[in-house]
Amino acid sequence: MIFATILAGGSGSRMGSTEKPKQFLLLGEKPVLIHTIEKFVLNDKFDDIILLTPKEWINHTKDLINKYLPNESIKVIESGNLRIDTVKNAMDYINENYPDDDNIIVTHDAVRPFVSHRIIEENIEAAKNHDACNTIIPATDTIVRSKDSEFVDEIPNRDELYQGQTPQSFKLTKLQELYDKLDDNQKENLTDACKIFTINNEPVAIVKGDISNIKITYPFDLKVANFILKE
Amino acid sequence: MIFATILAGGSGSRMGSTEKPKQFLLLGEKPVLIHTIEKFVLNDKFDDIILLTPKEWINHTKDLINKYLPNESIKVIESGNLRIDTVKNAMDYINENYPDDDNIIVTHDAVRPFVSHRIIEENIEAAKNHDACNTIIPATDTIVRSKDSEFVDEIPNRDELYQGQTPQSFKLTKLQELYDKLDDNQKENLTDACKIFTINNEPVAIVKGDISNIKITYPFDLKVANFILKE
Repeated sequence: MIFATILAGGSGSRMGSTEKPKQFLLLGEKPVLIHTIEKFVLNDKFDDIILLTPKEWINHTKDLINKYLPNESIKVIESGNLRIDTVKNAMDYINENYPDDDNIIVTHDAVRPFVSHRIIEENIEAAKNHDACNTIIPATDTIVRSKDSEFVDEIPNRDELYQGQTPQSFKLTKLQELYDKLDDNQKENLTDACKIFTINNEPVAIVKGDISNIKITYPFDLKVANFILKE
Repeated sequence: MIFATILAGGSGSRMGSTEKPKQFLLLGEKPVLIHTIEKFVLNDKFDDIILLTPKEWINHTKDLINKYLPNESIKVIESGNLRIDTVKNAMDYINENYPDDDNIIVTHDAVRPFVSHRIIEENIEAAKNHDACNTIIPATDTIVRSKDSEFVDEIPNRDELYQGQTPQSFKLTKLQELYDKLDDNQKENLTDACKIFTINNEPVAIVKGDISNIKITYPFDLKVANFILKE
């Protein structure tokens, strides 16, 4: 089976004074996460779509699904504190309800509503063939490293650097096996699910992302997203 | 003296089928680079504004300046093949025409028209106090390293990573001194002027950039820029 896992665990702290986490803000006439979920509902390869959101937003999220996307393949469950905990909740849910050695999990940010079907399809293929994949684009900006945020430590060669997007997709049994090997310290410092593979020296295939597959992090991004929607 | 150096050496190859380099494309009612130069003309701290552009575009650029910004403090000179050659041409021009040990050079991408006066002022201060500075923002995307562009090699900790913007500003005598130490191989592989300092283990201070200080690289960015302009 193939599962879409939509990560909507963000608290929206970077959006300034807004009351709601950014996945719930209106983009055009629908909340951001509805746009995102639609992309996965419209692709018939997915058996189930699992939406993970903070406990206090579960009822609101279910109301939104009933209003905009009344579809029984969408399940709403609780997200974790950290991104990696949220992915773990999705793994547990799938393993409990649909145990199978060939399950594929496509994880995607709820706040990236402009993901394309080409990107989704290539994720499924790459996860089947390589166990793990990441969607990335070449870094357009120079990347700079600084430990103290006051002085620059290093400017790595840009040729080898990419900006990570999502989806990130995995063969579930492999993801689970590698996750179980992590110690508590590793788990706490994981900001990225693909890193479970790289720190275990397991390959992560690359899927080419797209410049328009933006992440809505700041109020500025929501303005850009509204503009893209009108194009 | 304080010099603004506007780097307009780009050939626009990433803009797709457009005929003109992106710095000459219309943003609202004026070419991109006119918006950018205006920011520096409006700040009275600059003695001269040096605009560097490919040889075949010099006449066109001069025509644009005459039309939109008839101001004698703007000089148009030839850019180099690489970004670092362009910076070198600016250094040579200043050293020849205005030799002085205290000269400050503020280098800025012609295709970043939304730089703020706060950022420009902080660049001048940081260059005076620390000899070199870079304008950067915290990386919003996860950064990924890949040598072969097929598999991920490393996902560095995002906490320490930033996206470089411009301006980058320098005390000219120090920049020249460090540049002269570089061998040919180092010069060829330099994509960033601040790297002249970091590879010599000299400090580069950080100026906080802004999310709206975007670089117009792709057609998508020009659409976003037109949208920002209307806000």
